[in-house]
Amino acid sequence: MNQTHDPALVSWVESAQGHPDFPIQNLPLGIFRRRNSGDPPGIGVAIGDQILSLAATRAILGIPRGPVGQACEEQSLNHVMALGRSHWSALRADVSALLASGSRASRPGTADRILVPMQEAELFVPARIRDYTDFYASVHHATNVGSMFRPDNPLLPNYKWIPIGYHGRASSLVVSGTTVRRPKGQLKAPEADQPVYAASGALDYEAELGCFVGPGNHLGEPVPLQSAEEHLFGVCLVNDWSARDIQTWEYQPLGPFLAKNFATTISPWVVTLEALEPFRVPAFKRAEGDPEPLPYLQTSDNQTRGGLDLQLEVYLSTARMRAHGIDPLRLSRATTVHLYWTLAQMLTHHTSNGCNLQPGDLFATGTVSGPTKDSRGCLLELTWRGREPLTLPGGETRSFLEDGDEVILRASCEQPGKVRIGLGECRGTVMPAVAS
Amino acid sequence: MNQTHDPALVSWVESAQGHPDFPIQNLPLGIFRRRNSGDPPGIGVAIGDQILSLAATRAILGIPRGPVGQACEEQSLNHVMALGRSHWSALRADVSALLASGSRASRPGTADRILVPMQEAELFVPARIRDYTDFYASVHHATNVGSMFRPDNPLLPNYKWIPIGYHGRASSLVVSGTTVRRPKGQLKAPEADQPVYAASGALDYEAELGCFVGPGNHLGEPVPLQSAEEHLFGVCLVNDWSARDIQTWEYQPLGPFLAKNFATTISPWVVTLEALEPFRVPAFKRAEGDPEPLPYLQTSDNQTRGGLDLQLEVYLSTARMRAHGIDPLRLSRATTVHLYWTLAQMLTHHTSNGCNLQPGDLFATGTVSGPTKDSRGCLLELTWRGREPLTLPGGETRSFLEDGDEVILRASCEQPGKVRIGLGECRGTVMPAVAS
Repeated sequence: MNQTHDPALVSWVESAQGHPDFPIQNLPLGIFRRRNSGDPPGIGVAIGDQILSLAATRAILGIPRGPVGQACEEQSLNHVMALGRSHWSALRADVSALLASGSRASRPGTADRILVPMQEAELFVPARIRDYTDFYASVHHATNVGSMFRPDNPLLPNYKWIPIGYHGRASSLVVSGTTVRRPKGQLKAPEADQPVYAASGALDYEAELGCFVGPGNHLGEPVPLQSAEEHLFGVCLVNDWSARDIQTWEYQPLGPFLAKNFATTISPWVVTLEALEPFRVPAFKRAEGDPEPLPYLQTSDNQTRGGLDLQLEVYLSTARMRAHGIDPLRLSRATTVHLYWTLAQMLTHHTSNGCNLQPGDLFATGTVSGPTKDSRGCLLELTWRGREPLTLPGGETRSFLEDGDEVILRASCEQPGKVRIGLGECRGTVMPAVAS
Repeated sequence: MNQTHDPALVSWVESAQGHPDFPIQNLPLGIFRRRNSGDPPGIGVAIGDQILSLAATRAILGIPRGPVGQACEEQSLNHVMALGRSHWSALRADVSALLASGSRASRPGTADRILVPMQEAELFVPARIRDYTDFYASVHHATNVGSMFRPDNPLLPNYKWIPIGYHGRASSLVVSGTTVRRPKGQLKAPEADQPVYAASGALDYEAELGCFVGPGNHLGEPVPLQSAEEHLFGVCLVNDWSARDIQTWEYQPLGPFLAKNFATTISPWVVTLEALEPFRVPAFKRAEGDPEPLPYLQTSDNQTRGGLDLQLEVYLSTARMRAHGIDPLRLSRATTVHLYWTLAQMLTHHTSNGCNLQPGDLFATGTVSGPTKDSRGCLLELTWRGREPLTLPGGETRSFLEDGDEVILRASCEQPGKVRIGLGECRGTVMPAVAS
């Protein structure tokens, strides 16, 4: 095991010890600035309840070093992402050493110049995301949704062969904490003669894992599965807000469009593949009778360690719950172990026709749902299209989201003998639709 | 009529007179540089067989003036696009005056410093396109394709209510002249038990009209139809290359993905809405029994002049035809008059849920097909999914594209008493798939 994962490693930043998300074994990267400072945004590393400013450590201590150190002076992570794995490792080693007990960075007069309390920071979308793709990698989600929309034909014949995906909207990606306006759109009740243009009455979240692309590939040059992971930089949380009534009426034959592109919220901290290393697991074990992936989607390495043991949780907090001091309610908990396709398979499939990916591109897994009811990653599944509303503490019920509802996604990796790391939070509160 | 459209207007650039695409009444904008010059790319105006360099006219003559003049010093059209209609008019007036007979720009010693022969120029994608959307606005195309893929259900119930669209891939947009590699992908013959990963055997083009977005809108704020045209900068040609065999197998339930995102070719010259003014026509007249658009997609202005009378032609030139000196064959000619939705309706629908558009975003109409066989804008329709191959001059036949085939799109507006203008060409040649 790489030394940066060592469970015995301790940081001089006290809040890092035992922090559920950001101990020294994690070191996720993001873009931040001190709130109301007028400073340009810069790259930071989350450590406990603090952010280490890499621009400041460069200026004061000359670390991180080398080309990746230079890339750390940019205002987005794209340059770092473009450099590739050996540079990311060098960066991680430098930052780990800086934050480890006894580092010269911990000295008074230095520490206070390189740390910013997270509470005082404004966080941004961590990269200039030029293209955003969403997959559909949870077979449980696909089966549940399919059985609602196509009862006779829930899982289409292509599902077990193709990592199904589609292009999302990059412009409406927003960072955790941004409010989300309830969209209007064309809705048609099953019994109605014609649609109306009105505020969505079936607003939903989708809990997903996102992955940032590192070095890209040239147009026309597929990335083989053997080298796919060299193009995977790290992961974040994604809430793919979805208006189910808009979706039902618009999605055929070309797929979801306005049902999804009004907002997609992502968490600000990118947890690198290297930080996730201790939590790699075999790829999903296919059921008896399921086909083997085609050769271009198959390697033994992907099979033995293509998966990721990450728990993804969804919490809901309504306006009424907040007013009554009621804690957010956990609606579901699912693991990415159940994803039918690995991140590497998704990337390789994406490029298998020569499509070019670029550093900072984001792709997401699609809703992460497991086999049990309490692991369903969206309300559509949890309430079975609204037919089985949830009852919340305080007595409210929910079929879909109401104005004022806050959705909070959290994710973590936890294993005996390893230090738990997390992705932080991805939050968004629903605002009323614009007036007519 | 604006003076810049005056049929009597004559340019001192001699090749502009009677030029089928670029007379002085057109003045399309693009990004170019003198080939092998090492110069940075800059904004140019196509005039006859020449390009007027706006960076050069700014430096030498101080024209174009004002904020739009400054924006003309950039290396993409995004800044110009962001400024809005009054600035675009000012730019057009300045450039028209510069290129009109008698202008001081025509003097020896000036003219040769501001003009670059088009033959010596390298042309680029004219804007940094952050998001690319493709619509499905030709009811003839939708009906033809639908009857092949869903014989019992060709035109879905939503078609006449919703300008159907989906997100395309921005990274693989390439400029006319770029070769296009035949994609590989998952293909499954109807009778086969399982798919294979192989080179597409059903590569197609789609002839479309593209439209660049001018000023954007904020997330959460729909653009009403009344002001939609203020956000439309200008048009270009789009070849939405499509691998029909990949598409058939992958497209359900989330729409086209790898069947389309391996390459989309666009023409380099953006013809502004102002240049197209004389060719505006009433929106498509819906058939008896078709529904009226919902109120948010309806204005009297859109109805009387939302349409565009533009002819879109597709030519094919095979390697064998070129070797035998045979001219490209025109495969189809269609008019945008037949589009079921106007550009303004597409833009308004796109933002109707609050989705934010940004300056330089591109959306395309989808394949422009008319009611007759010779107006079908892709091979899928022309050969009815390959069942009725075309016979080419020289004796070859085509169901779909072969390696070495060059597809050439052209478009023009022509009306009695008005000066014909064109969009130039959008070319692409098919290269063999990558070796395994």
